[in-house]
Amino acid sequence: MDCIGITANRGKNGASGFLKRFVPALEERGVSVVLDEDAGAHFSGGRVVPFREMVAAADMVVVLGGDGTMLHSVHRMLPDLKPVIGVNVGTLGFLTFSTGDDPEETAEALVAGDYAISERRLLDGVVRRDGVEKAHFQALNEVTLKHENVARMISVEASVRGDVLNRYHADGLIVATPTGSTAYSMSAGGPVVSPRSEVIVITPICPHALSNRAVVVGDDETINLCGKGGEDGDTLVLAVDGHARIPITNADVLEVRLAENPLPLVMRSDRSFYETLRLKLRWHGSNV
Amino acid sequence: MDCIGITANRGKNGASGFLKRFVPALEERGVSVVLDEDAGAHFSGGRVVPFREMVAAADMVVVLGGDGTMLHSVHRMLPDLKPVIGVNVGTLGFLTFSTGDDPEETAEALVAGDYAISERRLLDGVVRRDGVEKAHFQALNEVTLKHENVARMISVEASVRGDVLNRYHADGLIVATPTGSTAYSMSAGGPVVSPRSEVIVITPICPHALSNRAVVVGDDETINLCGKGGEDGDTLVLAVDGHARIPITNADVLEVRLAENPLPLVMRSDRSFYETLRLKLRWHGSNV
Amino acid sequence: MDCIGITANRGKNGASGFLKRFVPALEERGVSVVLDEDAGAHFSGGRVVPFREMVAAADMVVVLGGDGTMLHSVHRMLPDLKPVIGVNVGTLGFLTFSTGDDPEETAEALVAGDYAISERRLLDGVVRRDGVEKAHFQALNEVTLKHENVARMISVEASVRGDVLNRYHADGLIVATPTGSTAYSMSAGGPVVSPRSEVIVITPICPHALSNRAVVVGDDETINLCGKGGEDGDTLVLAVDGHARIPITNADVLEVRLAENPLPLVMRSDRSFYETLRLKLRWHGSNV
Amino acid sequence: MDCIGITANRGKNGASGFLKRFVPALEERGVSVVLDEDAGAHFSGGRVVPFREMVAAADMVVVLGGDGTMLHSVHRMLPDLKPVIGVNVGTLGFLTFSTGDDPEETAEALVAGDYAISERRLLDGVVRRDGVEKAHFQALNEVTLKHENVARMISVEASVRGDVLNRYHADGLIVATPTGSTAYSMSAGGPVVSPRSEVIVITPICPHALSNRAVVVGDDETINLCGKGGEDGDTLVLAVDGHARIPITNADVLEVRLAENPLPLVMRSDRSFYETLRLKLRWHGSNV
Repeated sequence: MDCIGITANRGKNGASGFLKRFVPALEERGVSVVLDEDAGAHFSGGRVVPFREMVAAADMVVVLGGDGTMLHSVHRMLPDLKPVIGVNVGTLGFLTFSTGDDPEETAEALVAGDYAISERRLLDGVVRRDGVEKAHFQALNEVTLKHENVARMISVEASVRGDVLNRYHADGLIVATPTGSTAYSMSAGGPVVSPRSEVIVITPICPHALSNRAVVVGDDETINLCGKGGEDGDTLVLAVDGHARIPITNADVLEVRLAENPLPLVMRSDRSFYETLRLKLRWHGSNV
Repeated sequence: MDCIGITANRGKNGASGFLKRFVPALEERGVSVVLDEDAGAHFSGGRVVPFREMVAAADMVVVLGGDGTMLHSVHRMLPDLKPVIGVNVGTLGFLTFSTGDDPEETAEALVAGDYAISERRLLDGVVRRDGVEKAHFQALNEVTLKHENVARMISVEASVRGDVLNRYHADGLIVATPTGSTAYSMSAGGPVVSPRSEVIVITPICPHALSNRAVVVGDDETINLCGKGGEDGDTLVLAVDGHARIPITNADVLEVRLAENPLPLVMRSDRSFYETLRLKLRWHGSNV
Repeated sequence: MDCIGITANRGKNGASGFLKRFVPALEERGVSVVLDEDAGAHFSGGRVVPFREMVAAADMVVVLGGDGTMLHSVHRMLPDLKPVIGVNVGTLGFLTFSTGDDPEETAEALVAGDYAISERRLLDGVVRRDGVEKAHFQALNEVTLKHENVARMISVEASVRGDVLNRYHADGLIVATPTGSTAYSMSAGGPVVSPRSEVIVITPICPHALSNRAVVVGDDETINLCGKGGEDGDTLVLAVDGHARIPITNADVLEVRLAENPLPLVMRSDRSFYETLRLKLRWHGSNV
Repeated sequence: MDCIGITANRGKNGASGFLKRFVPALEERGVSVVLDEDAGAHFSGGRVVPFREMVAAADMVVVLGGDGTMLHSVHRMLPDLKPVIGVNVGTLGFLTFSTGDDPEETAEALVAGDYAISERRLLDGVVRRDGVEKAHFQALNEVTLKHENVARMISVEASVRGDVLNRYHADGLIVATPTGSTAYSMSAGGPVVSPRSEVIVITPICPHALSNRAVVVGDDETINLCGKGGEDGDTLVLAVDGHARIPITNADVLEVRLAENPLPLVMRSDRSFYETLRLKLRWHGSNV
């Protein structure tokens, strides 16, 4: 480990305090540190460069902020993903390495290699119209298809490996990674999926039916979604990791599969996914 | 029974054919018929008057169309509800008396009193800001609170009879009548509620939690909803029976209770709510 | 208030300590106290009589123990229900008035009338074979129908007011009161029901189907259950409030309705059902 | 393909009629046929040998019967699994190749190689007490842990790869394969899992909690279950593919992982898992 890059959520309280101890702790251990402008806003005296330059220089990238900031930073890095270390001052997130109260220990753990790399597969998606690619994207959590009008439903036909799965009449449809299984897919009733499972989860949002069940498909199965029925001129919106990005019409086909290159997520060796799950979701097998 | 009024969905196929036999069958049985303009578009030769006049003249009102047209007609009638008879040509709806293939029998049943009145309670709601009433409404199915931005969640505190129920961080919140229990509340995971139950169902939409459970409250319990947290200037949208109508801010309080006067819904004596449920939702206690 | 009766779970830790302060506190306030043998085992020096005699003498009955002890005591009282006060030393239950750390205040509240009576409807059920009543029972939480063999499913046809609801092929079927909605019915996916709702909840246990939805019916609706299909000689078991009691065959019909006389449950005026719900089930509208 | 073996459910109607056309059709195509005693009971004139001998001689084994007969036959074959072909006269099962109305076409398809092999991973489990193996088993659908008393709950701690997942207080716990995801796990609320997903699903049965969510783990993750708390002398029962087999006490540890050798399931190339799913479970993304 020669160089650690740092980015941050500008509004994150406690980031300054953390960096004031973390940066020197790294430097004392012979690791150079480079900050992007957002991290630089929390810490004066370091080497500050633009985000892309910071990533290129770094062996690993510390992200100061919550799961949302992690998602945002990963999207800025794409397609070249470096190992990322989530430091969420004061709060435990699903992607969090440290809650920020131990800057020296965090520095020591990173330098000493005392961590585990959790490889997180992303989704790789394209939108095609008449066979022509209109958009291409990657997602760490999920892609979501909804109507642009909050009061309207969508009719979408989902296929897996070319076989029709179902035609959903629903508020929306979520296609999620294991990482995304504890985010929006969970809210819509989907299962919790271990990060070691190489699968994709298809979870309908409020289907107009008595049956609402998520479907889990394998890592070599491609999912196709296309709008059906509805009124002419209906416009759906495709959201990637929570950000509405791409308008979709009935003429478009959305194709989603697991991306080849995973995100190397740096996690503590001694805290399991399931411990975070129990702590963060206050999950108990029994309440009584 | 002296006079039957008729309204219709203008786009409903089969309405003309039904009326051509239904109107004479009523008249032969000594019942006068009055149509509003929408019904008049499907049938020439009848007495056509504006909707409100038609309702005022009628002892019962036939609505030609599906559950959506029924909702629409009930909203046009409010606050003076006459017994309504749903005729949904070709399709069974939850509010349907006849699927339109038996105009003479339908006429005979209505004249002979061979039907059951299912009294359906509506919701009565007001929106208040600083104690001042901003809006007042009634709903046959449900009221729904969502963010105006389809990609955003709401934070809403719900109270029942003045006691805090929960603070929901969710895509939305539904407050439904028993009639609405088979509509949007069902899609969001709520229970099926018999029309004879005098209760209100509170069903969260995709709560950001492992626990998603509908809450059923009694007929004398008032529900209060108010937006909490979120960003300043957040605007929620209150939809009444599926129609987005009223913008809501964190300064507003929404109060919902069961309305006093029910809708008298005319139903067949020989087809139960549960039969419609099984037929329409293809519900089976077992699939294997 | 002239006389308070007391019963207890013999194994309940902390009961002695509570009674040592509670009984004198009542007597100082001019209320006589009578204990049954189980309460007498925790407290010497009081007037001890058999359970039935204690109930007959008392204006209200304190039950020292958890929700299970409350259920047990109510069943011993039936059919003559006195107001009951749950004191669960150290733990909050859904039926708990006090967690036992305030014996004098509890005494004062009871004497001063500083409490609320929550009337809880019970279920009233009969099992009939060839029109002859085989068994009659009442339940505060629920009745449950299962196969006597833990590995076998049941096939049961449920009707409401004489109309077929569904034929369930499932591990079992629960018919619950609002009080029981936070017990077994909740485990099986049923809704939370306010104690003020006068309804019955029908919740299937692991139905062999994609659709699993509880059904809520009104207070004037009678539910009939009868075993269908399965193998000859199949024996189902009817459990009343968790206690397996009555073997049921395909020749039997089980009829359940709301009982006329409610249990007067003494509750604190200042703690709502919803607060208990949130505390006990660690329920939050959001976990993130 | 030189030799096809045949076994059958003795009680299966239509088996005789199928075999009368199927056996000659195979022989005409140069394939020898060998039947076990159960198949021999439906067809006279063929070569009948004991089950194990039939399996040893056969390149593929036709199982005449439903999914239950398939499970039973697979268990009789273990540990030496030959490709199996389900023929379920009159009914579509999840493991069915043919519904029996096309004996000649089925023969032709098998001889011509016009089929797909769907490799189905089994679970491999051991029960250990004090480090000593008490039982070893394999399961195609699922293993289920319940209390031997149908009215009692179990307390079980589940771990994944040595990390505690949760402690469940529930009616039971299911550990299922993708093949089992449409069986008991589905009834308990688990997701539908594509046969191509190499995962294990952990689904609690009626957990005493508001939260009930299945957990999906990866193909290299071992699951450990051990009974906790409860009363001394509590006996749980482990069921393997629906058959109660092994009593479990709090001193035992149950370890489950994916087995190495899959079952080669012969399926039609032109009918997808999802089509069977929709047909068999009458699943629709919309009911209205």
